[in-house]
Amino acid sequence: MKKKGIAILGSTGSIGTQTLDVVRAFPSHFDVVVLTCASNATLLVAQALEFLPQAVVIINEDLLDFVRSKLSHTSIAVYAGISALEEVVQFEAIDVVLNAIVGAAGLRPTVKAIESGKDIALANKETLVVAGELVMQLASKHQVKMLPVDSEHSAIFQCLAGEEKNPIEKIYITASGGPFRGKDRSFLSSVKKEHALKHPNWVMGAKITIDSASLMNKGLEVIEAKWLFDLEVDQVDVIVHPQSIVHSLVQFQDGSMKAQLGLPDMKLPIQYALSYPNRLENNFERFNFLDYPELTFEKPDMATFRNLALAYDSLRKGGNRACVLNAANEIVVDSFLNDKISFLGMSDVIEAVLEKVNYLVRPSLDDYIESDYEARRIAREIIIK
Amino acid sequence: MKKKGIAILGSTGSIGTQTLDVVRAFPSHFDVVVLTCASNATLLVAQALEFLPQAVVIINEDLLDFVRSKLSHTSIAVYAGISALEEVVQFEAIDVVLNAIVGAAGLRPTVKAIESGKDIALANKETLVVAGELVMQLASKHQVKMLPVDSEHSAIFQCLAGEEKNPIEKIYITASGGPFRGKDRSFLSSVKKEHALKHPNWVMGAKITIDSASLMNKGLEVIEAKWLFDLEVDQVDVIVHPQSIVHSLVQFQDGSMKAQLGLPDMKLPIQYALSYPNRLENNFERFNFLDYPELTFEKPDMATFRNLALAYDSLRKGGNRACVLNAANEIVVDSFLNDKISFLGMSDVIEAVLEKVNYLVRPSLDDYIESDYEARRIAREIIIK
Repeated sequence: MKKKGIAILGSTGSIGTQTLDVVRAFPSHFDVVVLTCASNATLLVAQALEFLPQAVVIINEDLLDFVRSKLSHTSIAVYAGISALEEVVQFEAIDVVLNAIVGAAGLRPTVKAIESGKDIALANKETLVVAGELVMQLASKHQVKMLPVDSEHSAIFQCLAGEEKNPIEKIYITASGGPFRGKDRSFLSSVKKEHALKHPNWVMGAKITIDSASLMNKGLEVIEAKWLFDLEVDQVDVIVHPQSIVHSLVQFQDGSMKAQLGLPDMKLPIQYALSYPNRLENNFERFNFLDYPELTFEKPDMATFRNLALAYDSLRKGGNRACVLNAANEIVVDSFLNDKISFLGMSDVIEAVLEKVNYLVRPSLDDYIESDYEARRIAREIIIK
Repeated sequence: MKKKGIAILGSTGSIGTQTLDVVRAFPSHFDVVVLTCASNATLLVAQALEFLPQAVVIINEDLLDFVRSKLSHTSIAVYAGISALEEVVQFEAIDVVLNAIVGAAGLRPTVKAIESGKDIALANKETLVVAGELVMQLASKHQVKMLPVDSEHSAIFQCLAGEEKNPIEKIYITASGGPFRGKDRSFLSSVKKEHALKHPNWVMGAKITIDSASLMNKGLEVIEAKWLFDLEVDQVDVIVHPQSIVHSLVQFQDGSMKAQLGLPDMKLPIQYALSYPNRLENNFERFNFLDYPELTFEKPDMATFRNLALAYDSLRKGGNRACVLNAANEIVVDSFLNDKISFLGMSDVIEAVLEKVNYLVRPSLDDYIESDYEARRIAREIIIK
């Protein structure tokens, strides 16, 4: 059996390191061809020495010399800078590009990988949030698979196996509700980042953990799902499920629903995206009903958690709205993590930015990048005032 | 599109009439070729006049003249007697035989239909309980599909779509727990058939409703699932789920679980068995999470509901044990419905019969039929004493 060649963009983050755990468990199935990271040079070097890829990329150019010196006794090529990502994803030996970059920066490398005919294992939901229509058209044109790594989208993708001829009636994306589920706006007005960073079920990076607390993560997932599964907005519903065991559900046109379940562990969707359509036997802890005698479900509170409503609005309006929403959100989350704005202030800034950036109905890739830039600029301006 | 030709064995019962509801909803998809029933001649005649099959069978021979006279102005052939079933299932125009006969009497027609190359939509679980090994070998030899109609087995079958290359690690068959869930043996010692016939979630025939109250139905389903999905006994688990929304689950070797869910409505698994692998759009009521904010799960109480333990024991021992268990159960349920034995007495008689009927390791079809007969005889003897 030929090994699957994998490029991991963002190899030192939460998804990246768990992807390498999966590769480590199945050395005869996967081969690491490329590793890239933003600035964790020490870990990147250690990973490179263990997995011996053809190349690594360190985005922070100041760290190029360090990485080069540490890998000089190997044949691993070392590159620096964000634009290098667009080169390395094209390597011949790559079958799948796992994109675990945080934020809209993931878009360009995804586009280049698709154009080179690589399948995409997508942990960078912003790729589809920002430019879903364009990216999915491109994927279809180049006949590449878009393999979701988000647990919710992986769940839906797993439920769709064997149902290719059966249209989806509706999907339910489950949401844990985050650490502030059930709280009101008066409570939220005083929460600090320390509270927001404590997710009840999932251990993840800081950006996505804040997005989970504010329900923006769920909003981004709704947008991602719309494009990934080619649905109308009203076919995508969110249901709060605090135990995070049912990872999402599909309802078909005969009324039958299928769900994918399991303990909350990102390694499973990562492994499935890499091994698809096959499943590989592993020793991950198994779900036991006796540990979860009650699975509960409730409506999301969009009046309190306004980000989710803003995301639905942006998706309904279409064009560059979701791109602007996402860009503004990246800035406000960064500001919140740096104690520059309040938890509730995040939605306020996003809403103001959505009002100010020009609405484009059918943006090109360059338009998206311009809208993204403009939204960030305006968000920063509002925050500084 | 060629219509699918369907024979419905047991067309006047609960499953049979619901099957005809499905056929009625999709007249361009399905064509009724054969209808059969035990003794409800009036309904059989009405069904025949509506669906105009090639033939009908009334098993009670005393009613042959009545049915003949009512259908004499049509070209519908009318047969009587149980052995006629083995003839009509072979009709050229039949693609699928839906077997909704109650009890072990369903075995011979299933075998004959398989030998004639017909796909089987199996609502008669006793076919596999009595002679699962033999029937599945035969189905494999004749390359016919075994399409489950039980909601639990349909759920598992639906979850296995697209997973043909991925071995099952385990399945969970869900059980409502029936009307006596949570009760102890002292309570059960005095229950009457009126209580046992009140199932909390499903409207079904009398036999299966009593089996649901005693958990024998779940035991028979465990046995059916073992053969249908080619599993070891320890791969089949039962979990009590009182809301009957999650119809069953599959766990794969990567730890991922898939479940099929929906409101409890037998028309869905019936429709899926007939339309498989496609799904047909219908207007059945849809599941709404807000009506079911809690889905709960608990261990079955096999010390109180001994039938389930007896079923597992019989399956572990193999040979003719499940056949004997099932035959004894048919007698005790009939006796319970006729106020001849108590609710708890049913398990006692089954256990005594299992001790008395000779153990055969590898029975032939005739051996099974002999064991079935012997078990019934002994059960009746014990009850009369």
